[in-house]
Amino acid sequence: MASNPERRAALVDAGVEVLAREGARGLTFRAVDAEAGVPVGTASNYFAGRDDLLRQIDARVHARLAPDPRVLGELMRAPKDRTLVTALMHDLMARAVRDRTGWLALLELRLEATRRPELRDSYTKSVREQLLYGMEFHREAGLPGGDETVVVLYLAMLGLILEQVTLPGVLDGVLSGTEVPDGLVERIVAAVVPAR
Amino acid sequence: MASNPERRAALVDAGVEVLAREGARGLTFRAVDAEAGVPVGTASNYFAGRDDLLRQIDARVHARLAPDPRVLGELMRAPKDRTLVTALMHDLMARAVRDRTGWLALLELRLEATRRPELRDSYTKSVREQLLYGMEFHREAGLPGGDETVVVLYLAMLGLILEQVTLPGVLDGVLSGTEVPDGLVERIVAAVVPAR
Repeated sequence: MASNPERRAALVDAGVEVLAREGARGLTFRAVDAEAGVPVGTASNYFAGRDDLLRQIDARVHARLAPDPRVLGELMRAPKDRTLVTALMHDLMARAVRDRTGWLALLELRLEATRRPELRDSYTKSVREQLLYGMEFHREAGLPGGDETVVVLYLAMLGLILEQVTLPGVLDGVLSGTEVPDGLVERIVAAVVPAR
Repeated sequence: MASNPERRAALVDAGVEVLAREGARGLTFRAVDAEAGVPVGTASNYFAGRDDLLRQIDARVHARLAPDPRVLGELMRAPKDRTLVTALMHDLMARAVRDRTGWLALLELRLEATRRPELRDSYTKSVREQLLYGMEFHREAGLPGGDETVVVLYLAMLGLILEQVTLPGVLDGVLSGTEVPDGLVERIVAAVVPAR
């Protein structure tokens, strides 16, 4: 298999674009070649098959959406209370808004996983690891609330991001005086995370 | 346009199946005809176009997933407290588990809405109306918590249903002693809805 790492990265990013824009069925090697502006046949030299491409898209989007270590380091200097959890969730939301395409690709991957057992297993593992990492992070930082706090917070943020990246008009003005999505992030944390 | 109501209903249900199984790109009149076991060309006599079919699928799935009025009437005899909210959320979750295909079709509709402005407008309206109805229902029944309680509850349940219908393994055993999804429904309500 071809191994130019920059070319591979460009092809995977092109795959993310195609997946978000055309849906899972539109994700073909030919469409990836066209999106990346490379000769037909290039993608098939870089990926063992479509499942391999889907796995690499998963890894790439998770890297794209990961927190910036510098921003995180800055945030983590604050007292370990509900205000810090709010700041962390604002950062998560800001990353989702900045890379809406990445999130749409993740949602397409979820639906494609219902059709492809191999993808379902690898994608379940990667989403689950992220959640378990979040629970460990919360515990070790001494943030308020237990494991169940993190799980409920995760689910509410997942719902909010799904709503925002697919149907942004649904929540607009639903709660008067609450900006979307930032004010809703604050409402979620206030409801779910104990004051101390 | 042809107007046999039973035939139309069967075609829309076939559309739900195709959308869930094949994704938005797989939803063609031809695939709907094949799924419904009717002659090629039938669906095109029943729907003005693909947007019309998508709108009717939206309406049909919302009807399929609506609470049974008898079950709801039975539940609403209980005291209007957190236990009742838990029972209502268990019922919502049970309907999602029973009609996973319907929910997968709704998720495909969300992604297709990002590509089709007309569908985005009509689908935003229908999801928003449901949320506003839920807020009104909660208020009029005198259930504990305000509008923000209903919105946060809605988002957490949306996240839970997304997780359950696409990657059911993610939450399995993540909280020890908490069954998925029923125990998680209880954790969500306990976290979000005030005791009184």
